[in-house]
Amino acid sequence: MEQQIAKYLARFGISKPEEVQAIVAHMDVMVCKKGEVLLQEGSFANQCYFIVEGCIRQYQLIDGEEKCLDFFLEESAVIVYDSYLHHKTSSYSLDCIENSILLAGTKEQEEALIKEHPHLNMFTLRFLTEDYNKVQDRLASFVNLSAEERYRWVEENHPQLLHRVPLRYLASYIGVTPESFSRIRKRLQLKA
Amino acid sequence: MEQQIAKYLARFGISKPEEVQAIVAHMDVMVCKKGEVLLQEGSFANQCYFIVEGCIRQYQLIDGEEKCLDFFLEESAVIVYDSYLHHKTSSYSLDCIENSILLAGTKEQEEALIKEHPHLNMFTLRFLTEDYNKVQDRLASFVNLSAEERYRWVEENHPQLLHRVPLRYLASYIGVTPESFSRIRKRLQLKA
Repeated sequence: MEQQIAKYLARFGISKPEEVQAIVAHMDVMVCKKGEVLLQEGSFANQCYFIVEGCIRQYQLIDGEEKCLDFFLEESAVIVYDSYLHHKTSSYSLDCIENSILLAGTKEQEEALIKEHPHLNMFTLRFLTEDYNKVQDRLASFVNLSAEERYRWVEENHPQLLHRVPLRYLASYIGVTPESFSRIRKRLQLKA
Repeated sequence: MEQQIAKYLARFGISKPEEVQAIVAHMDVMVCKKGEVLLQEGSFANQCYFIVEGCIRQYQLIDGEEKCLDFFLEESAVIVYDSYLHHKTSSYSLDCIENSILLAGTKEQEEALIKEHPHLNMFTLRFLTEDYNKVQDRLASFVNLSAEERYRWVEENHPQLLHRVPLRYLASYIGVTPESFSRIRKRLQLKA
């Protein structure tokens, strides 16, 4: 568990063992069942998460339909920043679409951590920058690509999702109906 | 100019006159012509901008075509965070699509400012959070809405863009061809 979070943190320049240990020590281990809801749209995100194992989905309810905005796999952090940082209600829900093991931290735990290690102060900014880029890339994929190209974009950039995420969620993720999604997949498999 | 930036900063809880004055004092006034390129994809974003007057477009070149990711109007900040904060090459270009007056600041100016006013340290995080939300909302609009609904989304959320931004840019912004964009607009005008 510590090794995984260490690998993630190293990407952001946090590599001192005592800092990694302090981060893990200030977080709680959560064992979640597939289907468990971590955050409900309209409520407050009191925790941020690091995924040790499993898959988290970020979604919104629009006209009674769940629209999938994003998926997070092992060795990534999941933070609904606006709600978590600025105590606003969340525009998104989070649930586990696989049995998952998470490290979870509250704002209070984060503050206690930063008190001990002031140097870690600016790192939320780095996580947020990375996530901002990720969302911008996703947005660019919608602005620039056709549905078929978006499928290929997922295949190239997040191939694991195609094996682990249910088809109806993936369809929503690339902005098509499940039927169109199946047709696109079939067409691309025939081409391959 | 100071009043406009004060209004923007107040949204983020920066309201002490001496802090607002210090921010303005640490930035440069830029007068830009329509068409002027502020940042070229592949180069480094050395400055962040605050728009006093005008309109900035953020775009990418894909297969020789300019794809428009975002537009920024008066009283908003424009920062290509990843490039500006972490000295990476920018994935986006920025240009002025109107004659514009900007306040521009470099990382060095920002650091000098924070040295004088350490309390301003975490505010980039707040700007970034707001921009992150904006991009997420835009992404949600692509995931959840049809092209016609996206047009209406712009109409409701950013009505000024429809009057100020050339049609071909707007079409790219909502992910359709200029021809489709004209058809959608006509259809909606007939309905109205």
